[in-house]
Amino acid sequence: MRVTDRKVEDWLREDVGHRDVTNHVPGETTGRLVAKESGVAAGLDAGAAVFDYLDVDCEATVDAGEEISPGDVLLEVEGPAESVLRGERVAVNVAGHASGVATKTRRAVESAREVSDEVAIAGTRKTTPGLRGVEKRAIAAGGGDTHRLTLSGMVMVKDNHVAEMGMAEAVRHFRDEKSFATKIEVEVERPEDAARAAEAGADIVLLDNMTPAEVSEGVEVLPEDVLAEASGGIGISDVPEYAGTGVDVISMGSLTHSADTLDLSFRTGGQ
Amino acid sequence: MRVTDRKVEDWLREDVGHRDVTNHVPGETTGRLVAKESGVAAGLDAGAAVFDYLDVDCEATVDAGEEISPGDVLLEVEGPAESVLRGERVAVNVAGHASGVATKTRRAVESAREVSDEVAIAGTRKTTPGLRGVEKRAIAAGGGDTHRLTLSGMVMVKDNHVAEMGMAEAVRHFRDEKSFATKIEVEVERPEDAARAAEAGADIVLLDNMTPAEVSEGVEVLPEDVLAEASGGIGISDVPEYAGTGVDVISMGSLTHSADTLDLSFRTGGQ
Amino acid sequence: MRVTDRKVEDWLREDVGHRDVTNHVPGETTGRLVAKESGVAAGLDAGAAVFDYLDVDCEATVDAGEEISPGDVLLEVEGPAESVLRGERVAVNVAGHASGVATKTRRAVESAREVSDEVAIAGTRKTTPGLRGVEKRAIAAGGGDTHRLTLSGMVMVKDNHVAEMGMAEAVRHFRDEKSFATKIEVEVERPEDAARAAEAGADIVLLDNMTPAEVSEGVEVLPEDVLAEASGGIGISDVPEYAGTGVDVISMGSLTHSADTLDLSFRTGGQ
Amino acid sequence: MRVTDRKVEDWLREDVGHRDVTNHVPGETTGRLVAKESGVAAGLDAGAAVFDYLDVDCEATVDAGEEISPGDVLLEVEGPAESVLRGERVAVNVAGHASGVATKTRRAVESAREVSDEVAIAGTRKTTPGLRGVEKRAIAAGGGDTHRLTLSGMVMVKDNHVAEMGMAEAVRHFRDEKSFATKIEVEVERPEDAARAAEAGADIVLLDNMTPAEVSEGVEVLPEDVLAEASGGIGISDVPEYAGTGVDVISMGSLTHSADTLDLSFRTGGQ
Amino acid sequence: MRVTDRKVEDWLREDVGHRDVTNHVPGETTGRLVAKESGVAAGLDAGAAVFDYLDVDCEATVDAGEEISPGDVLLEVEGPAESVLRGERVAVNVAGHASGVATKTRRAVESAREVSDEVAIAGTRKTTPGLRGVEKRAIAAGGGDTHRLTLSGMVMVKDNHVAEMGMAEAVRHFRDEKSFATKIEVEVERPEDAARAAEAGADIVLLDNMTPAEVSEGVEVLPEDVLAEASGGIGISDVPEYAGTGVDVISMGSLTHSADTLDLSFRTGGQ
Amino acid sequence: MRVTDRKVEDWLREDVGHRDVTNHVPGETTGRLVAKESGVAAGLDAGAAVFDYLDVDCEATVDAGEEISPGDVLLEVEGPAESVLRGERVAVNVAGHASGVATKTRRAVESAREVSDEVAIAGTRKTTPGLRGVEKRAIAAGGGDTHRLTLSGMVMVKDNHVAEMGMAEAVRHFRDEKSFATKIEVEVERPEDAARAAEAGADIVLLDNMTPAEVSEGVEVLPEDVLAEASGGIGISDVPEYAGTGVDVISMGSLTHSADTLDLSFRTGGQ
Repeated sequence: MRVTDRKVEDWLREDVGHRDVTNHVPGETTGRLVAKESGVAAGLDAGAAVFDYLDVDCEATVDAGEEISPGDVLLEVEGPAESVLRGERVAVNVAGHASGVATKTRRAVESAREVSDEVAIAGTRKTTPGLRGVEKRAIAAGGGDTHRLTLSGMVMVKDNHVAEMGMAEAVRHFRDEKSFATKIEVEVERPEDAARAAEAGADIVLLDNMTPAEVSEGVEVLPEDVLAEASGGIGISDVPEYAGTGVDVISMGSLTHSADTLDLSFRTGGQ
Repeated sequence: MRVTDRKVEDWLREDVGHRDVTNHVPGETTGRLVAKESGVAAGLDAGAAVFDYLDVDCEATVDAGEEISPGDVLLEVEGPAESVLRGERVAVNVAGHASGVATKTRRAVESAREVSDEVAIAGTRKTTPGLRGVEKRAIAAGGGDTHRLTLSGMVMVKDNHVAEMGMAEAVRHFRDEKSFATKIEVEVERPEDAARAAEAGADIVLLDNMTPAEVSEGVEVLPEDVLAEASGGIGISDVPEYAGTGVDVISMGSLTHSADTLDLSFRTGGQ
Repeated sequence: MRVTDRKVEDWLREDVGHRDVTNHVPGETTGRLVAKESGVAAGLDAGAAVFDYLDVDCEATVDAGEEISPGDVLLEVEGPAESVLRGERVAVNVAGHASGVATKTRRAVESAREVSDEVAIAGTRKTTPGLRGVEKRAIAAGGGDTHRLTLSGMVMVKDNHVAEMGMAEAVRHFRDEKSFATKIEVEVERPEDAARAAEAGADIVLLDNMTPAEVSEGVEVLPEDVLAEASGGIGISDVPEYAGTGVDVISMGSLTHSADTLDLSFRTGGQ
Repeated sequence: MRVTDRKVEDWLREDVGHRDVTNHVPGETTGRLVAKESGVAAGLDAGAAVFDYLDVDCEATVDAGEEISPGDVLLEVEGPAESVLRGERVAVNVAGHASGVATKTRRAVESAREVSDEVAIAGTRKTTPGLRGVEKRAIAAGGGDTHRLTLSGMVMVKDNHVAEMGMAEAVRHFRDEKSFATKIEVEVERPEDAARAAEAGADIVLLDNMTPAEVSEGVEVLPEDVLAEASGGIGISDVPEYAGTGVDVISMGSLTHSADTLDLSFRTGGQ
Repeated sequence: MRVTDRKVEDWLREDVGHRDVTNHVPGETTGRLVAKESGVAAGLDAGAAVFDYLDVDCEATVDAGEEISPGDVLLEVEGPAESVLRGERVAVNVAGHASGVATKTRRAVESAREVSDEVAIAGTRKTTPGLRGVEKRAIAAGGGDTHRLTLSGMVMVKDNHVAEMGMAEAVRHFRDEKSFATKIEVEVERPEDAARAAEAGADIVLLDNMTPAEVSEGVEVLPEDVLAEASGGIGISDVPEYAGTGVDVISMGSLTHSADTLDLSFRTGGQ
Repeated sequence: MRVTDRKVEDWLREDVGHRDVTNHVPGETTGRLVAKESGVAAGLDAGAAVFDYLDVDCEATVDAGEEISPGDVLLEVEGPAESVLRGERVAVNVAGHASGVATKTRRAVESAREVSDEVAIAGTRKTTPGLRGVEKRAIAAGGGDTHRLTLSGMVMVKDNHVAEMGMAEAVRHFRDEKSFATKIEVEVERPEDAARAAEAGADIVLLDNMTPAEVSEGVEVLPEDVLAEASGGIGISDVPEYAGTGVDVISMGSLTHSADTLDLSFRTGGQ
């Protein structure tokens, strides 16, 4: 779903304040959101939602996921000058942030593709508060996998559950609790536990904080129909080595918590 | 002001979803927010607000702005296990993000201090939508200057205003419109325009997208009681050179739009 | 997640209005939420949230999912009389509604158990607007399966997708789009399409609007590791016949859109 | 008043989630909300509000309160396919629920009309949390009486008030407190108390949890200008007997807390 | 109902902004809301709600409706200094405004009592947007009558309804539409129409924009069980003359739309 | 920034309630917001926002700040009759309130102009909760100065700060804490402290609760580049005397907390 009006309202309210003297401008104007560096477009629907809220006509001129170059126009807007001026900073901020996430994701995917055609690059729940949806959709735009969208989207059996109940019992317990519609993933700290997790009924096994060698070891002991995910402090430069382990999914918190913005600017007026 | 309950509610709602099977845990527990790398603490009040909303007792054990090292405890919490587990991811995300901003700011300030005891490192309006307050307070925690908090906090006369009305008239117009309580800053593109902006009545002159040499030139022509600000794509490595120009303020969008998170983790239970 | 303060506030605001003359009562009081008929308890956390918002102490004396009988006390409260009186109607309404859903679910599950130890009774997205979480958790309390919690929780390939792209292509398309963390279900209108859906890669096949005989036929052609779900106008009296088909899941919109309230009352004062 | 944007937003947000893969459909489409069974239409303004929020054109083709038959079209919509698909489930849920309430009310009214041309069938405050307005307007659409809309809409003197202050004093006290614009109703447990309530100044006397015979007795002792209301566990099959007592109002919580949905479906595309 | 947390949050947010440097004060403090002039206390629950939201202990030391004198303490608070300082301005503003309304109402009531023991002084719907509840409860505190609280609280038949349908038909139409729980008032422009309104079935007749003589004339023609209300630009100095007409209710928009604040101040610290 | 949709929604919801029988009118209508007395127009954007939310076309026919006379049309609207009728009361209330503030401000400014061409008439933070922005913009429309918009908009050093830290240290402390973009004002109780405040670094000195003679004394000791503000219980009749002191700013809480509404009415229909 697109960002809600309520969220846009909060974004505008925190930026504008009670009386913005310089935006008190009569008449209509046009404007364009323009790329200043190369990357992958995302968050344009959120940028457009800002202008929609302000009753400014807005059209996206590229699709989410497209590679863009300096000078490319991403959004075209037309409406009351006052409203265009009020929306521009917020639209740039959100679209720049989302495009930064999409671009970082794309680079990670490209890095993985050098080694493997199959491995997925996934996000995590380490997203910026208030922007879960925007960032998850930006990951998808970059060619990544969103991973579970909320805590309720997939069951994750953690090491403390296993410590408390034992592997088999922990998985059985949560299989009973969860819906048929939901998958179950089991986190393991040692490669040798991967097989036990699979036997216990995991759909996916999370190989947490392991070296590539350990991940390979974990992957080898898993049956074909159980997916393997590697996670834990994996940066873009580490991707090829992990991609070579045969793991199905590499998840990276840095896609969302440490992505630089993509440099965008907003230009008013002109044809 | 601290983050509002409404914002915390949105953060939790987007993360938790309708039914989080694994958090259905009886009893009470304790927990600690712990640093995994060195940096500057910030956003702890926002993290604490998450736990407060969930009726979990929470105490900050370091102040905003303190340098922290791996293993340092930032927050201590105690309450229903279910609520602690629900809050931890969101608290880590917001405090890690804010601490990342504070840390980047501190590094920029330190870099400036090598050259100048006076120059301020300031943020911009290029903040993450929904987190204006959190990020501005994180900049302050890092020793930076928040710059204007909203569009309404200071009048900024832009080049298009000058193009339309002329420098003298544009400044005069907005001086009439603005409150006595508010300052007026004038953006100039060429160093030689700085003096004209000051004559027209600017409290601050923004030397936009200039080289350090141009900034020096602009600073020189300004009277002592008018502040000079340099802005436009200045990264941390550029800070010393700009700091040496005698400019009063260096503002950097990257403090907020491109700061990596500070690595924090949350540990439940234990003594 | 429990209901949010914001939701409780809306519930109270719509019931109380601007000035409720009769609740203007000094002092403290106690109260109990009491069952007037037999059924299954649910929604007590939502009822408790109403009192919490009003700063009334509140403790649940039965767990969600427990069978209750007339006279059983479900919640005990203590606090300012004015606040207790303001909360009682809303608390009864939400807990009665949720318990009604849980009770209907339990009856459907019992009906299924006469025939099968395995088949799950599941809800649908046909929930009361504003109460998705309350109703899904009530289904779980009744021993049912929540099914997907939101549109984003599982991919459902519909007949119109198949009509447009063909079965194989439609499933392939959405497998590419979806996360590894998410399952994919394919809706079929004829039993003979079930096998094709499974071959195409469905995790679950929805046998829609079929007779029990057709469902049996569909179930038979499916491989063991693909789940079968029957849906479409199945009432409680139809459950045994469908449960006998070997289907894995029977989903029923009526659990939420047509459940009678469980009769509860609130009594103030007394020891 | 129609449902607010805020409420629609909550309804959509709880149903859609962060990324709904299957609704990512280009182009425009049309759709119709269609009756699958006979009943009384209501909640179409709420259904239309869902589509309005999503910027989908929407027109109601029947009025609230109209009897509808299978195949009848209730709403016609046209707009972006993505938005139509996102709104349909929520629109069906709210309109089906409201129409179920209207239909149950109409059946109760018809049942009363067999015996009395005058008696009103009224709702209560036992509504579904979050849907007070939708359900009260649905009762009106079904030909019923909304009863008081909020706690502040009429003063209700309860048995505990009478126990504490005595009948005459309790009524006098609340007559002083209440506005001239507001009526006062007094709840009595025994028919013989009805006359005392009227003498004390009640505009309406609530004959609570009485048999039809007791209600008749209560009605007889009341002066002509005081209304009599019967309430307490009255089901549709009980209506004629109560309607024959000469009571002015029969109020039924089950109109809202235990009404089955009216079966509606949404069909996209077509001419 | 008291003001909601959501409303308090909006009040604080609009006053505080993103970073309030001077309130960054450690430790605990106490404070008192003190009267600087004589009047009638109201809005103390709203003032207390501000402090409650900020987790500051707060106790009202006078009741709504009490006459207060300079130096009287209305609220006593104790809590974190930062929170006390953040709340004080908003608490003073809301309590001062409400007390101003209560005081103006009390003065109008006293003015009426010189002439009549019975006539009620009532408010209107001309309230300050966002403060309907606060102002209506302040009117009650001042000894006035709230009048209808919302548009839905009483049916008002206006002159344009009468022009369109005729008096008898208009009243009949709305009697059919309205609930038994709701009164019906008919607005007339000429005294001679009052009797016709009563005959048509009005519970109350509004004598709009009439001189005292005309009001007397209208009152005389009304049967005893129909209330008469005078309205339209009646100021406090006009009250006695209108009160002498025998009218039952004098309603005054100026009680809410033109009441001066009562001068209150907030003092921190001290014993 | 204009009022938000969320605020408009609250205003409408508090006025309309769950079912407003008399507004259930078919068809389209027009309407006009008309002045009934002379004054200064303001709040028309807020009035228009009410109609926009209801999808009623609305155009302002005078600008904020214009002097208006009885009969002048301020807003023209056209749309569904039901929506026009729902919005009118709220639109009148907010525009009347804002115009009352603007009118009072204009009168104070005119009073000041008799004596001084320069002195500004300013508002304070003593605004009506929920209407900070509306009232601040109304002050500007009346020709006044908004003063700081929020606590975060300017640093105000209070007497208790000075008592605690000494004048020089208090000002130095807050100069370090505040942004370069923000001014600093120092409150003094005695004229002789004005010079010390200026020396300590105040941009503005607040001469609090002083007689005109004391204010003159304070103004005289201040250097030219430090502004002087007089405040504390100054009414319109006091303005000329204070304006004659040479002070730069006279601030008056009564502009917002004690302004009578400007009498406006709404007329539907007609050509």
